[in-house]
Amino acid sequence: MWFTPDKKNELPVFRQLYEKIKFLIHSGVLKGNEKLPSSRFLSKDLGVARSTVLEAYDQLIAEGYLETRQGSGTRVVQGLVALPPPAFERSSVKSAFRGCRVGDVQSESIINFRSGIPDLEAFPQKEWARIYARVCGRLPSSSFRYSGPEGVWALREAISAYLFRMRGLKVSPGRVMITSGSTQGLAMISRLLRKTGEYIFAEDPAHTGMIEVVSRAGLGVQGVPVDEKGMDVSALQLSYSQQSNSNLAFVYTTPSHQYPLGAILPVQRRQSLVHFARENQCVVIEDDYDSEFRHEGAPTSALYELDPEVVIYLGSFSKILAPALRLGFAIIPEHMICDWKAEKMYTDVHTEALSQHTLAEFLNSGGLERHIWKMKKLYARKRNHALACLKNVFGGAVSASGQTNGLHIVVTFPDLVFTDDLVNELYEHGVKVIPVDKYSLNRNSKYAHKIVLGYSHLTHEEISRGLEIIKKVAGYAC
Amino acid sequence: MWFTPDKKNELPVFRQLYEKIKFLIHSGVLKGNEKLPSSRFLSKDLGVARSTVLEAYDQLIAEGYLETRQGSGTRVVQGLVALPPPAFERSSVKSAFRGCRVGDVQSESIINFRSGIPDLEAFPQKEWARIYARVCGRLPSSSFRYSGPEGVWALREAISAYLFRMRGLKVSPGRVMITSGSTQGLAMISRLLRKTGEYIFAEDPAHTGMIEVVSRAGLGVQGVPVDEKGMDVSALQLSYSQQSNSNLAFVYTTPSHQYPLGAILPVQRRQSLVHFARENQCVVIEDDYDSEFRHEGAPTSALYELDPEVVIYLGSFSKILAPALRLGFAIIPEHMICDWKAEKMYTDVHTEALSQHTLAEFLNSGGLERHIWKMKKLYARKRNHALACLKNVFGGAVSASGQTNGLHIVVTFPDLVFTDDLVNELYEHGVKVIPVDKYSLNRNSKYAHKIVLGYSHLTHEEISRGLEIIKKVAGYAC
Repeated sequence: MWFTPDKKNELPVFRQLYEKIKFLIHSGVLKGNEKLPSSRFLSKDLGVARSTVLEAYDQLIAEGYLETRQGSGTRVVQGLVALPPPAFERSSVKSAFRGCRVGDVQSESIINFRSGIPDLEAFPQKEWARIYARVCGRLPSSSFRYSGPEGVWALREAISAYLFRMRGLKVSPGRVMITSGSTQGLAMISRLLRKTGEYIFAEDPAHTGMIEVVSRAGLGVQGVPVDEKGMDVSALQLSYSQQSNSNLAFVYTTPSHQYPLGAILPVQRRQSLVHFARENQCVVIEDDYDSEFRHEGAPTSALYELDPEVVIYLGSFSKILAPALRLGFAIIPEHMICDWKAEKMYTDVHTEALSQHTLAEFLNSGGLERHIWKMKKLYARKRNHALACLKNVFGGAVSASGQTNGLHIVVTFPDLVFTDDLVNELYEHGVKVIPVDKYSLNRNSKYAHKIVLGYSHLTHEEISRGLEIIKKVAGYAC
Repeated sequence: MWFTPDKKNELPVFRQLYEKIKFLIHSGVLKGNEKLPSSRFLSKDLGVARSTVLEAYDQLIAEGYLETRQGSGTRVVQGLVALPPPAFERSSVKSAFRGCRVGDVQSESIINFRSGIPDLEAFPQKEWARIYARVCGRLPSSSFRYSGPEGVWALREAISAYLFRMRGLKVSPGRVMITSGSTQGLAMISRLLRKTGEYIFAEDPAHTGMIEVVSRAGLGVQGVPVDEKGMDVSALQLSYSQQSNSNLAFVYTTPSHQYPLGAILPVQRRQSLVHFARENQCVVIEDDYDSEFRHEGAPTSALYELDPEVVIYLGSFSKILAPALRLGFAIIPEHMICDWKAEKMYTDVHTEALSQHTLAEFLNSGGLERHIWKMKKLYARKRNHALACLKNVFGGAVSASGQTNGLHIVVTFPDLVFTDDLVNELYEHGVKVIPVDKYSLNRNSKYAHKIVLGYSHLTHEEISRGLEIIKKVAGYAC
């Protein structure tokens, strides 16, 4: 028998028959113009309903394998070439992952001092779930359509009000553009401003992932040195005046908490930067990735407030809520809004809408600020613990900086160079550290003494243990 | 009094004081090196707690407006220039929207025959909300971190199993890459393949939004004519052989339901297309935007199954579930997976994770297939209603095509040209139609007799009424 229906198969019988005939055609057993048995005959022969045979035949006719002509029955079409379907197993082996690890998937047993991961044990899962369920159940059905590329209006209003309460910023909701995280915001800006310029200035060191985003848009990257006050704006001015290429697209900055060194850019430099941007008609990107967590007072002002026409502000909910939600926003100057919306439209149409409604409600109910308040206390404790541990473990042999804001500290080990070998050895002993050197655009060796110490997602015990391991592996005697 | 605390203000008093001093500095009233009153004196003077004054001073010191030196009190730093903060109102007027409408936000009173909008009255809001809430409440906290750029494994497995049940496709989950909708999938592919080619072939007519996505990646677009069987593959081959530019990046196709004309590409042409791609070492994109809705049988086969090494399959949950969720996927050949993951990483890191977990559960529970089944019946009724109405309203004066699959019909009015004037007049009478002409890459006038009739989101009454209006406005006598 050339075909036996398998009732236990998860595919319906008509589909099994269809697949079988298709296979016979592709493998050349059934040839062009060959006549198939009538549905009546075949149904009797196979012991299946005639409708089952008809369904299989109809499907094959629709796809062009078979044709029927009046009086001539059902035949295989001519002109097909034998083409056996590729043998594919549905394997659950993650073979495709091997050899191209992108991102930083953490092994559970490693103490990873990477920065910027919130303590997600404290994420209000139940509360978020409750709000989402309520919102999703009650929204009108039109909210499940495509929404606008600019984002859900309720969220844009809620963010506008939040920025006023949190940062004293006065921003019209019409300028708040929702993004699927600030990485997307920077990618879109880079693609948009690639039309007006060929390169950017960025702080050196910087977040290398963000620099890669810019590079992928076809923009060159010029580093600007960073000192204890953040970006050296006079060095930027000097460097610009010496460029033969004047097509500057934008300046990328982290003024509230220089990434990774941690400085807060003082107001004089902010003013100079804004003047520079005005004079040279370029845009400044303010990536405000974690300024909510200023441990010694309220968040500092945003660069944005000095000139909303030249500064684009990038905000993120990854650090204050959860990275998995992929929610962020950009504040866009009026003249760029049309281009922005078109770019978003042809990037991913819009950001997932139900999370936007949920976040709007979470913001309006004061839930986010309560959460930030809770997290600030939690992070302040972890930070103080980390600083105390550094003192206990290393005595005066190391120094900390950049600790007033954010979720990481920079630690300087004057006598130690974090070579790749040392970093690997630490990893083998269960600790992952990233030397600041790795964030340097020109691999500046002066940063090889410094590491980033992200503490926010680690327990007190992990912080202590991690530092003890560094001490042991690095051979500190004290 | 230069400052009066406003207890009713939503900003705390320290912030009000901070803003006031900052304003006085920016406006040049407080000048460089000027000494401020001591916190003790000022707190008495203003009748506020001393800690309030200290908090404001500390903030201004942190931001570089003030400095303290031992024995010299608190002074304004030197070198600041007067720079009044821009006057911004927080208005809720959507002024930023005017003049740059992107997308197709619908006016409620218009009967819009645009295609591809599911009937969202039937979206299972409560069930989706329940699954999300359960998933969100139970996931381990690590699921709220960044997840991998390839997507949540559970969803990739669920899609792999779904494709086998629904389409007979055998796809390893390791090849299923989650996207934020298929627009994003096409945008990413375009950027990736821009490195290997300079232009693409696309069906003409085509989805103009998708063509714009490709163009924005810097790729040229060559149209390939479409006949009643879909893309004319021999015309493609001829056109390619005549090109001076051989850097073809990919061929973009909609083989299951040519957009917008509605043909199903027969297997001979599919074979030719795959041969073409193999010979010329290019990729074929199969955009399978709505094939689940085949009204006269099971969905047709995917082009993908003929050769998974040259075909990239783009799937979307926008039509079968809801556009607002922004969930889709791409099936990527093994050799492109590393590049794909890096591109996704620097596009938006990953797609929102909680919806991914929710959809995985909805798929695994059979919920999606039940929903599709329900929707197929609902759409079949609407389609039959639309076809019956066409007959009732226009008699034999118009003809329908492309109705076996998907969510729209193409209607040909042999005696009528859908000029911009007619389209505008129809709009004024409450009906929006899009002539097929608008989808034509070369504005082919032969398509000016045809319109797309998307019926899926309209009620029976709206369909009838819309057609009656077309009849009246276009002056049909019958």
